[in-house]
Parts: sequence; structure tokens; C-alpha cells
Amino acid sequence: MRLAPLLFAPLLPLLLLALPATAAQPTRIPDAALATAAQLRDRALADDTGWAVTESLTTEVGPRLAGSEADARAVAWAQAKLRALGFDKVWTEPVTFPKWERRSETAEVLGPHAQKLAVAALGGSPGGIVAAPVVRFADLEALERAAPGSLAGKIAFVDYRMQRAQDGHGYRMGSRVRGAGPSAAVRAGAAAYLMRSAGTDSHRVAHTGITRFADGLTPIPAAALSAPDADQLARLLALDPATQVRLALDCGWTGDYTSHNVIGEITGASRPDEVVLIGGHLDSWDAGTGAIDDAAGIGITMAAAKLIGELPQRPARSIRVVAFANEEQGLHGGFAYAKAHAGEIAQHAILAESDFGAGRIYGFDAGNIAAHASGAIGQIAAVLEPLGVAWLPGKGDAESDIGPYAQAGAAWAWLGHDGSDYFDLHHTADDTLDKIDPQALAQNVAAYAVFAYLAAQADGDFGSAPRMPEATGR
Amino acid sequence: MRLAPLLFAPLLPLLLLALPATAAQPTRIPDAALATAAQLRDRALADDTGWAVTESLTTEVGPRLAGSEADARAVAWAQAKLRALGFDKVWTEPVTFPKWERRSETAEVLGPHAQKLAVAALGGSPGGIVAAPVVRFADLEALERAAPGSLAGKIAFVDYRMQRAQDGHGYRMGSRVRGAGPSAAVRAGAAAYLMRSAGTDSHRVAHTGITRFADGLTPIPAAALSAPDADQLARLLALDPATQVRLALDCGWTGDYTSHNVIGEITGASRPDEVVLIGGHLDSWDAGTGAIDDAAGIGITMAAAKLIGELPQRPARSIRVVAFANEEQGLHGGFAYAKAHAGEIAQHAILAESDFGAGRIYGFDAGNIAAHASGAIGQIAAVLEPLGVAWLPGKGDAESDIGPYAQAGAAWAWLGHDGSDYFDLHHTADDTLDKIDPQALAQNVAAYAVFAYLAAQADGDFGSAPRMPEATGR
Repeated sequence: MRLAPLLFAPLLPLLLLALPATAAQPTRIPDAALATAAQLRDRALADDTGWAVTESLTTEVGPRLAGSEADARAVAWAQAKLRALGFDKVWTEPVTFPKWERRSETAEVLGPHAQKLAVAALGGSPGGIVAAPVVRFADLEALERAAPGSLAGKIAFVDYRMQRAQDGHGYRMGSRVRGAGPSAAVRAGAAAYLMRSAGTDSHRVAHTGITRFADGLTPIPAAALSAPDADQLARLLALDPATQVRLALDCGWTGDYTSHNVIGEITGASRPDEVVLIGGHLDSWDAGTGAIDDAAGIGITMAAAKLIGELPQRPARSIRVVAFANEEQGLHGGFAYAKAHAGEIAQHAILAESDFGAGRIYGFDAGNIAAHASGAIGQIAAVLEPLGVAWLPGKGDAESDIGPYAQAGAAWAWLGHDGSDYFDLHHTADDTLDKIDPQALAQNVAAYAVFAYLAAQADGDFGSAPRMPEATGR
Repeated sequence: MRLAPLLFAPLLPLLLLALPATAAQPTRIPDAALATAAQLRDRALADDTGWAVTESLTTEVGPRLAGSEADARAVAWAQAKLRALGFDKVWTEPVTFPKWERRSETAEVLGPHAQKLAVAALGGSPGGIVAAPVVRFADLEALERAAPGSLAGKIAFVDYRMQRAQDGHGYRMGSRVRGAGPSAAVRAGAAAYLMRSAGTDSHRVAHTGITRFADGLTPIPAAALSAPDADQLARLLALDPATQVRLALDCGWTGDYTSHNVIGEITGASRPDEVVLIGGHLDSWDAGTGAIDDAAGIGITMAAAKLIGELPQRPARSIRVVAFANEEQGLHGGFAYAKAHAGEIAQHAILAESDFGAGRIYGFDAGNIAAHASGAIGQIAAVLEPLGVAWLPGKGDAESDIGPYAQAGAAWAWLGHDGSDYFDLHHTADDTLDKIDPQALAQNVAAYAVFAYLAAQADGDFGSAPRMPEATGR
């Protein structure tokens, strides 16, 4: 599967491609639209719809692991919410994926320093009980150098500390430790895998997240320790290299499940079949209520479209909000959307997903943009600028679920949240509503409203065109 | 039990008593001792013994709930550590108390918004499973006004938000909600009790702590929700006042257990039978490793005495470090010490316990001080001042385990830690070593070393004398 790296490094930037120049007229956004967008921006800053939607999803549905009973409740909630917000059309599209269940997870140090460790099974881990000595590796590369069979009867422990960054780039390696570490442990013969959480906090809440074993390997129980527990285990191993841990996971794959992408549309006035797509993902991990990941993205984009829908006139193009199914376990909703709409790339003017929390948006970028559309991107950037958003060419990426469709050729935009604190919370029990700043969330809504409205009003396209059609298949 | 309020409000100041003036000479600290103390202070700031001891206890023993298997390991650890640090005498004194066990605890919202809640059983709670509607009270007073029987078949929920403060005074009410709330719920007929944690953080780690049901009441399951879970439950109740919660606690009292106060002494050169007592408590709650509560107190006071023991000459009086047993469930070690040493109050020159974390010490005060000793207190304050410690008459209290002996008449000192962040961690899984700042801990050791050394070198007493002898009984 050529897109597999996306599963583990969704933040890796896709290249901004300057497509071959054509004879097309430059894409331009009319002055009247720029003036309306400025008003929309200011209205959004004073509006609490984004907060209300985010609060509603996190409170009324709560945690919503893909395939759980809450998945179905989330799908029903999203349809009802889109209708209540006045969207012109609301529909669902099926997304089928393997279902993974977490039932219980414990870990404890055995022997003279017996104590419990706070642990979270990695998504995709099999269940199992392993009591064995632990071998610590400072990073993934060290584990990858371990000789085949050298960890027989041992638990591999990768103690890599992820770095904090505004753009979250520390997660590139953090997520590799989670995605590739278990397979490396299997290759060295380990009986189980532990890792320091891919996170930047210091709380006793471990960070879960998907892992996937390479083809041909027999999966082993794999889990993340909270940062203080990783510290503790490292100290205990320094005291006694024979330190043993008992890891007991009850979890695993249990057959297929069909959820749904939930889609709402503010129908365009003059080009209703052309679409500006914004959205977030509806599913979350199960320990928290998925507030920053990604109820905020749902709240931001539903609110932005709703505010556009309240303008005196519908924009030229349709604004489509997609609440994607099961992003967390492999962009399943994003792949399903790309497949279902494989023949409609050119009708998708441009895409943007909000899936990096609710910190203030500081950067704007776009990709798959035709040369004739670069001026229009600059016009959008100018209206975003009073929000504290800088145009940062080459900085952004097509976030999460829009990745497959972007890779297939759709133009995309990046509205980059300040993620300095994102990995304090990401995939933990601490991802709850209280961590969101309502003012920052309103700024996010303002930025998305400006972007979506101006893209919908542009005279001319942004460059969406099919390429690499095989990428839309699974 | 007349000291019962101490169990729930250990920070309530005991009054500084000016005892009747006598013909005694003013107590004075010799100039040479002041000079030595200044050197000791600077040496302590550059010494890492406090950190090493704190790290050792939290790592090698880990969580050490009174009466658990780790309690015995902690007692063995403390004896070995005192010997390794070069104390002249090391011994134990038995402390017997009822043993409480935590086996499991879960809570979940039932019905259309089903989701798990992060909860911790209160120490002393019985086990039980209750699924019932929840009635929210903004504070303890509101619950206390509920009519008898009015909460039959309901879960009482006190949603009081504890306030952050340098001196931790928000805990007076926070600990009352925990100590008195369950009894108030029983009086109103409730089937179970929930409270917002007595804490100041925003993490999914609930704050446990002891509660005790009033005589004649039938105990009910009682637990604390983490702050985000209390927020969530309040929102769900606002949406639907019939919201039901299922609380399942497996915990309870299981007979008596005998632990030990562990005592080490640097024996005085000229007045070996007179004692300056410093210490902390050896037990902790079970979710964290009890780093700030109270491994730090153990580390600070063992290190301070060890540094005094390394001086070229022993001080005049003995320095006694007490690692008290089972502070958390009712000052059991403190009461046992007071009872075992009831006839020796006058031989205890002065006492100080470190049981408020490892924030920088900002204040100094003393109580039960005779008028003729006030000048010596001022001399100690002057040597503490370069550490950033202000003399704050009337501000302090006799912390935790020294309370019973202070109430019996022993002079006491207060070296007040900055506790602004203390209740972010207190009694939670997050109370781990990484939360301690090694520099602040060294400042703490310096302050305790200065205090203990100068008190041990004072010519004359501080005013310890028996009063209220019945207070030393249980």
C-alpha cells in the first residue's frame, strides 16, 4: 500500500506542486467578496457556534472510538447537528474498516520494587499477558539494530523523548516509534513492546494511537507508558538490569464495522456542483473525549460553514463540511471519500482539514495549486493576516483525511494551528473540553470562514486535477 | 476524639502561645553556631542528598499505601537509608491502625450519553455498586441543607471548586468537602457520594484522601471525580437532570495492621537526651509514588540531619529524624509518637515537619514558644533570610504528624513551602518525582539544616512543656 507512510506520519508535508502552466486566466477573487470576507471574519470572532458544537460533541457523545457503540451515536449526532445548523443538504457515505477493541490494560513492575505502571495499549495491538525482563533502547534506531532473536523472552522498551514544537514536527519521530517500533521488536524476537508515550506532557496518562505490524510478522502486545512511568522504568532498569514487567492487555481486532462520513453542504448559488471542502474527523480515541482531536475540527468547520450560510447570499460554490469516519486507525474516512469521489477531483475547488487542535492558527499555505491560481491564494492570505495568520509557502501539508484526495490531485490549503501544547493532550485521557480556549477557537472559525468563503467566490479554479489515480484505491 | 478536626484540616494554624513569663534567661544562639549555620546553608544548596533520598524512596519503593505490602518495604528502606547516611542511632516504634484497601473503582454515565468517568474512591469508603440519578450541589453547605431522606435512591454530587493559593488555604474547604461531605450525604439519605476532587489541576487524575463517617451513620460508597469529569457531569446534568451514574467501588477496611515510625538520630555532643525533631511521613497514597507527599519531606529532613552529622563536631542536642507511619489516614504515626513520648515533651526542644511538598520555602514561624525564646527564633530567622525565607509571625502551623505532640505542649516551627502547585498533584497519580525541582529541594534542605542545627545549638529552651495531656491519647 503505497500510502502507508501517511498512516504514521500525517504531518509530513506533501510537496506544493506548481502544475504545468496553462493558458488559463489568472484566478481572482472579486473585491466585493474580499469585503464580505472581512465582515465574516469579524463576525466569527464574536460568535460562539464553534464552541457550542465542540461542547455538544464532547459532552453528549463523549469518547467515540471508531467501531464502538459511540461511533453510531456520533454519526447520528453529526447529522442532527448539521440539520440544526441550517445546512442545505445532509447525507452520509459508508466507511467500512476493521474494528479494534480495548477492553483492559495493566502493567506492573515485578519483584522487590513492585509497583503499577500507567499504560495504554496501542491501537491494533493484540491482547496477551507477558511477564519478562525489559531491555531499554534510547531510540528506535537502537532497537532496529538489535540482532534477530536477541530479544527472545524479553520486552523491548523504546524510551525516546519526543520534542515539543509549534508545528508538531517532533511527532514525525514520535509516531514512527509507535508505528514501526512494534515490528522492529518482533524482528528482534521480543515477546512484547513498550514505548515512552509519543507526547510532551508529564502526566500519568499514556498516549495511545494506531500501530500496524509489517506483513508476515506475528503481532505482539504493544503499549505506551506515560512519561513519568517511562522515567520510572528507566530508573529501575538502571538500578537493576534484570527488572521484570508484567504487561496484560485485553484488546484486539474483532471483524469489520461500517461507519459513515457525515457530510453537510451549504449549496452554492451559481456553481453548486463545485465544492470547497472543509472538515475534521468525527471519531476519537477512547480515553478522552476527543476535544482537540478532533471535536475542535468538527466545531470549527461546521461553524465556519454555518456563518457563511447566514450571509445574505449563498457563495458561488458549495461549501461542504465532512465529518470523516475513523481517521485514527488509518484515515479510513479519507480514503473512502477519495474513492467515492474519485471522478470528481476537478469539481473540488480546494480542500482543508482542521485536525491539529484548537490553538491559534498562525500559518497559511496551499498545495497542488496551479500557477494561475497563486494570486488568489495571496488574496486569501491578505484577509487572513489580521487574524495573526502568516502566509508560509512550503510550510504546510494536507492534513489527515484530505491527504488521499490531495495525493490524487485536489488542491489543498493548510491553516496551521499552534500545536505547542497539542502533544500534551493528544490521544490521552486529558483530551477534554477544558483544554480549549474559546477565544482561540473563535479565531480558528474566523480563519476557516474566510478561507472557505473566498475560495467559494473565486473566479477561476485552484488547480485540482487528477493525478496518480491509483492512490485513491486501497 | 477531640483532635478529630486535625484529620481533615491539618493546615489550620495552631495558635502561637506566649506561655507565662518565667525568670528564665533569654535563650540565645552562640555567634559561632550562627557562623557554622551560614556555612551549612551554603553547603546544602550545593548538595544533592535530598534529591537522592527522594529519588530512592519514590523509585525503589514507589507507592506505599499504609498497610500495603509496600508499607513494610518502606519501613525497611527507611532504616537502611538512615544507616547508609551515617545516622548514629536508627530504630523503629510500632504504629497500629485499621487497614484500608483499594481494589478497584469505576464510574460511568448511563443512558444516551454513556461514557466512563475518572474516579478515585475516598480512603475509608466502603465498597459497593450504585446506579442512580445524580443530584448536584454547588458546595458542601448546599448538601448540608438537604432535608433528611430527600436524596433517597440518589447519588449526591458536591461540585465545589477548590481555590489555588501559595499557602494552600483552599484545602481547608476542599478537605471538608471530602471529610464531611459523605456524612452529609448519608444524613440526606443518599446511596452514594461523589465530589469534584479537592485539587487545582485540570487532568484526568482524581484526588483521593481520607474520609470518615460520623458515628452512628451507615457508610456509603464515596469517591472523587477528576476536575474534567466533574465539569462533564455538571454539563450532562444541565442537559438532563435525570442523568444516571453507575459507581462501582471495591475497597474497604480489612482489620488492623502494625507499621512503624522509623527514627534516626544524630546524637548530640553535650545534651544528647534533648532533641530537635524534624521529619516527614513515610506512607503515601497509592496512585502516585508520593513524591511531593511526602518523599520530599523524608528526603529534606534526612539530608538536613546528614549534613549536620558531617560537621566537624556534633551539635549540642540530638537531631532526630522521624519518618512517620500512616499520616494519610489520620496522623496515626504522629499520635503514636505523641503517646510513646508523652513524658518527654520538655526534652523535645522544638519540632518541625516537612509535609507540604518541595516548593521553595518562603516563610518561617514558630509556636508554643516561651517569651524568653523569642529572640532565638529571630536569630534563626536571620540565618534563613538569605534563602528567601521571611519570618511571618502568626502565619504558620504545626504540620501534620507533629500536630498531636505540639498540641500536647511541644514547641514547633513552620518552614512554609510555596504550595501554589501542590494541589495540582496532591493525592493523585501525578505525584511523581519529575514534579520536583532539584534546586528548590536543595533550598528546602538548606532551610531545614539551618533551623535544626541552630535549634540544637541554642543555649536555653524554646518553651516545650506539657499541657492538655489528654490530647496525646486517642
